[in-house]
Amino acid sequence: MNTHLICETGFDSEKIHFYGNKFLTGNGYMGVRGTLGEYRKEHLPAINLAGIYDKVGDGWRESVNAPNGLYTYLVIDKEAYTLPEKEVSEHEMCLDISSGILTRKTVFTTPKGTVSLTAERMVSMTNHNLILEAYSVTADYACKISVFTGIDAAIWDIYGPHLPKIELHQEGTYLVASGTTQETNIGVTTQEEAFCLFQSQEKIHINEDSILHEFLWDAEANVSYRIEKKVLVSTSRDTKPATKPQDYETERNAHIRFWNQIADDSYFEIMGDERGETALNYSLYHLNCIAPRHSESLSIPARGLSGQVYKGAVFWDTEMFMLDYFLYTYPDIAKTLLKYRIDTLPGALEKAKSYGLDGAFYAWESHEGGLDACSDYNIVDVFTKRPMRTFFRDKQVHISGAIVYALKKYLRITGETDILTEGGEKVILACAEFYRSLLLKRATSDFYEIYDVVGPDEYHERVNNNAYTNRMAKFVFDAAYELSGDTQWQKLSAQLIPPKTNQDGVIEQFDGYFKLEDCRVADVRSRLLDPKEYWGGAYGVASDTQVIKQADVVAMMCMFREDFSKEQMKANIDYYEPRTEHGSSLSACMYSLLSCYTGHPDFAYPFFLKSAEADILPGAKQWIGLVYIGGTHPAAQGGAWIVAAMGFAGLQIRDGKITCNPQLPKGWNGMKFKINYRGKQYEIIISGDSYQIDEL
Amino acid sequence: MNTHLICETGFDSEKIHFYGNKFLTGNGYMGVRGTLGEYRKEHLPAINLAGIYDKVGDGWRESVNAPNGLYTYLVIDKEAYTLPEKEVSEHEMCLDISSGILTRKTVFTTPKGTVSLTAERMVSMTNHNLILEAYSVTADYACKISVFTGIDAAIWDIYGPHLPKIELHQEGTYLVASGTTQETNIGVTTQEEAFCLFQSQEKIHINEDSILHEFLWDAEANVSYRIEKKVLVSTSRDTKPATKPQDYETERNAHIRFWNQIADDSYFEIMGDERGETALNYSLYHLNCIAPRHSESLSIPARGLSGQVYKGAVFWDTEMFMLDYFLYTYPDIAKTLLKYRIDTLPGALEKAKSYGLDGAFYAWESHEGGLDACSDYNIVDVFTKRPMRTFFRDKQVHISGAIVYALKKYLRITGETDILTEGGEKVILACAEFYRSLLLKRATSDFYEIYDVVGPDEYHERVNNNAYTNRMAKFVFDAAYELSGDTQWQKLSAQLIPPKTNQDGVIEQFDGYFKLEDCRVADVRSRLLDPKEYWGGAYGVASDTQVIKQADVVAMMCMFREDFSKEQMKANIDYYEPRTEHGSSLSACMYSLLSCYTGHPDFAYPFFLKSAEADILPGAKQWIGLVYIGGTHPAAQGGAWIVAAMGFAGLQIRDGKITCNPQLPKGWNGMKFKINYRGKQYEIIISGDSYQIDEL
Repeated sequence: MNTHLICETGFDSEKIHFYGNKFLTGNGYMGVRGTLGEYRKEHLPAINLAGIYDKVGDGWRESVNAPNGLYTYLVIDKEAYTLPEKEVSEHEMCLDISSGILTRKTVFTTPKGTVSLTAERMVSMTNHNLILEAYSVTADYACKISVFTGIDAAIWDIYGPHLPKIELHQEGTYLVASGTTQETNIGVTTQEEAFCLFQSQEKIHINEDSILHEFLWDAEANVSYRIEKKVLVSTSRDTKPATKPQDYETERNAHIRFWNQIADDSYFEIMGDERGETALNYSLYHLNCIAPRHSESLSIPARGLSGQVYKGAVFWDTEMFMLDYFLYTYPDIAKTLLKYRIDTLPGALEKAKSYGLDGAFYAWESHEGGLDACSDYNIVDVFTKRPMRTFFRDKQVHISGAIVYALKKYLRITGETDILTEGGEKVILACAEFYRSLLLKRATSDFYEIYDVVGPDEYHERVNNNAYTNRMAKFVFDAAYELSGDTQWQKLSAQLIPPKTNQDGVIEQFDGYFKLEDCRVADVRSRLLDPKEYWGGAYGVASDTQVIKQADVVAMMCMFREDFSKEQMKANIDYYEPRTEHGSSLSACMYSLLSCYTGHPDFAYPFFLKSAEADILPGAKQWIGLVYIGGTHPAAQGGAWIVAAMGFAGLQIRDGKITCNPQLPKGWNGMKFKINYRGKQYEIIISGDSYQIDEL
Repeated sequence: MNTHLICETGFDSEKIHFYGNKFLTGNGYMGVRGTLGEYRKEHLPAINLAGIYDKVGDGWRESVNAPNGLYTYLVIDKEAYTLPEKEVSEHEMCLDISSGILTRKTVFTTPKGTVSLTAERMVSMTNHNLILEAYSVTADYACKISVFTGIDAAIWDIYGPHLPKIELHQEGTYLVASGTTQETNIGVTTQEEAFCLFQSQEKIHINEDSILHEFLWDAEANVSYRIEKKVLVSTSRDTKPATKPQDYETERNAHIRFWNQIADDSYFEIMGDERGETALNYSLYHLNCIAPRHSESLSIPARGLSGQVYKGAVFWDTEMFMLDYFLYTYPDIAKTLLKYRIDTLPGALEKAKSYGLDGAFYAWESHEGGLDACSDYNIVDVFTKRPMRTFFRDKQVHISGAIVYALKKYLRITGETDILTEGGEKVILACAEFYRSLLLKRATSDFYEIYDVVGPDEYHERVNNNAYTNRMAKFVFDAAYELSGDTQWQKLSAQLIPPKTNQDGVIEQFDGYFKLEDCRVADVRSRLLDPKEYWGGAYGVASDTQVIKQADVVAMMCMFREDFSKEQMKANIDYYEPRTEHGSSLSACMYSLLSCYTGHPDFAYPFFLKSAEADILPGAKQWIGLVYIGGTHPAAQGGAWIVAAMGFAGLQIRDGKITCNPQLPKGWNGMKFKINYRGKQYEIIISGDSYQIDEL
């Protein structure tokens, strides 16, 4: 069995949104939701553009979707055959994660027989403006077939329309749809060329919101008819004009070769766990679909390129959860991600200033230039339908620490220090200045404290001395001292209040946490009045309890494992895990990783699987309050790599040397994967407790 | 017309709760709600006991009501005639505020004619355990009349039952009901003696929840029959046993003489404004009904003795709004109020400690011993019916400042310094220590700041540098320095961050207030989804706007008028008044007073009237969220005195000398009132702009 094929058989209209995420294709320039060609906007198709943002009126700022050049539907004897409207006798979608090709096969039942439609789609890895799609139609009886295919200009937008006037026209062999964003004045163009590999009549229809070819022919029974499409998507922000594609087959082959190389470079073999292997490699597939290979300064949004959810914005997810995979496989991409933060320093400086603070306060939801797209009212209350004042934007100050942490990790792993003079040094010092301006000293104390923050666990707002945040601030002061030799940073680091622990070594997540109602996730869930209601905020069911959204102290321990003994790590896992909802996809991988660190891979395994299967299995949260949050989970996918490599394989760089400390969960006989370390590729082969590392 | 008679004619069952407050009688030991004799607990009758508290199960701690010894109803020819059940052809209630007597006259229409019932009630000012009530019944035809009168043991409780087992028996001429509180184990006894002034048959009925005399007689037409009742209420906390009363007439006369003296000592004549005069004197009536004359260490709850609302607890209302009247008329009572705070210092020390703070953090809702009855969940959300986390208890730190402010005022006005050695000094220093432990200094600033507080305006929670709170802290440091000569206090005072002002001299209520949505009270009201919903909290309609509940900066200016020019005061009134809901009865008087200070008595007048008529007119808030808050408003009543005396008359003590600065509103030709200053009584007569002060 080929574990690189992810398939879903049968049609279920309830799963349309879920499959849109699961079967995402993309190349970092754009993401194409795994929706069917005949879908229109109610089923959330999207060609989601990386780094292109816009704002309409009072709506939230968000990423922009291009006109859908993949729009295609089938008409048999004047009757349209589309999903979800028509009955099908067969339906399957398959994604080949080692070639980046999504296929679809649907067999419609018509009054006279059956008509089979197959399609393949790929978002070219070798021409970032290009999408390829090919359709084959076969009827088991003679009939008149029309294929309508072209560009749907009725774009799915959450807070749009971002391209309010889309101009539709024909230009040579191409159909063209182009518009301009409202706030940012960015031109967005989709060009589409369709080619019939057989004899047909062609007409062009220019409708109000679409421009379509109609290919009409008299089909013979049991003959397959193929149509190939090339779709070019471009924007006025592109640094180079789109390259006209070569022929379909040439482009297709180049794309497949590229993906094969990715799979060869970084996919895992896991001996004894096909499910785990597939889920992990599927995760890496996703990271590669959204990695900004076409740019030298761009980052990855928290929902990847799966749509406008979370505003298409970049969160700490990238630095904390996705970066490691790239650091160890494609360090150039890691640098691109970090350059984005260096280049958005002006936005971070401005944000800090707007709050009366110094230095760099990075955007919680970063758009171009570091503009913070995060609203002060980021959730809608289910009971009153009113926007709720949230504190993600202004109080989640740990974001700046994540960036310094990532920079330092980049320096450590790659040994490449140019990034410091290219702006990295400025970022580190500006973040140190930021945390300095947050420090408070009581008239009656010798310690500096940090008040009124939101830690990783967002269910507890406006807390004092969040252990994670304080530790990050200390890390930033240490980094600033190391960089500058300025002893002020050393002093601030030394005077930061140490975390409080109970008698078992459990670190209190923030001042007063242990005094909150001690209950379990199920208790809190049972108090919900509405399944969509927000657990946090001032009055949420979790707010005044010890139930937390996600790893917080445990995340801190993962980041600073050298501070803690295994016993203390275990005590903290034991305490916090039953109190953790894992309501964020950033949570499971942290519990998994720390469990590996304590020598408990079997405890770690289900969390690994949860992380790796975040987009394979349905069930991810779709709503927070009344805000739709469906989309892919690249942080969980990055987290799966972290657990596999750093946890189960125990990969570490020690004094410039690669080491492993295998901790395989039950059923795993071995692992095999490659990493790239300082310009050389190594293969790591683990077999039981032993391992070998071979330079390739 | 006698402006000392407050009457309501006609019966309206909608107003039963309102009249219960409006027609309150009391003597500081107990308050008796102005309900009719026949009412049972659904109409909220209460004999509310000062300083007696109890807690049942998980319910809120609250004051205790005694068994209702005033329970009385009328039966004509075997048919009960009671309100609100029966039709009446006439009904009137009148309160004589200069004799402390409440009367009631009701004419019932029966099938055979009419029956008139009159009653008078007084809560003895000369025997604090005693209530007198007399009934007269007259029918205009011959009939059989029964009067049932005795003790109703079915007590109206909010979070009761506090006297779960009430024992009912007869003891000599008395009916007795006695029980014991659940948490506090306090014995509460009501004894009742009823005396028929004519020939009747008497039976005693001991029912499950009442013990009653039945007086039965054959009534002749148009003959008036009178029954007199003496009710003795006592508790096991009384310092002396209840004195057996003398005969009805003797007790009644002594009571009237006492009230006449109060009226003579402190009521106002206002020439040209009968309505204002009545409202003001009615306010003083209330203050005297609840003044703790029987104790040397007791204070007045925020809802007086009108029931268990606000838990019968003592708030800052007493120090800030009620104290002045007593200081200038009955300084002994002022001392009793302050002694309560001195004696509850241990509770304040313990509260501070429980929050990791130093010194004295006084209870926001003070019960005996300084126990804070304030819940962390003091409001119930109308939408979810869940308790809302509120911050009155833990963040309204200005309470301790109010107590020091009051002590300093007492020292200044009375010149009596014994209170310092009797504990006042300890209180001042402990409050200074408390504020010191709240001070924070940013690593990047030279100023001390106070974060995360709730100011007088409770609609804005967890704010930084509330100008009122900071000014109070500074005052406390200054007082500690003055008292101790310890320069640490001087330094802390000097380093406290000064308030921020805009270009017009308007002081920003707290950090960031000016950045909030600038709108008016009506805007905010129009956003309500439910008339009972709470305007404040995290998501209230006012929370993220500049609309405030009550005077905050303006209150600060009233307290520290020497800091500000008239122009600045006016600029602040002009700014804040349109943004003030006056949702607390503590608000209007502050705006009124400050307007007088700026020389605008006509602007001040409607606020004065609003304050003085708080319990005369219906319309006071009855609900916050789903919590019933009906009751009397003694702070507004104290505020009315402050405005009349300090505002319109401009009364001030300067260098030990009484001065006035009359600022009479339109229509006022003059004022006449007395004060007691350092053991001497003075009459102040104001006529237009001029005044004279005569020692009596």
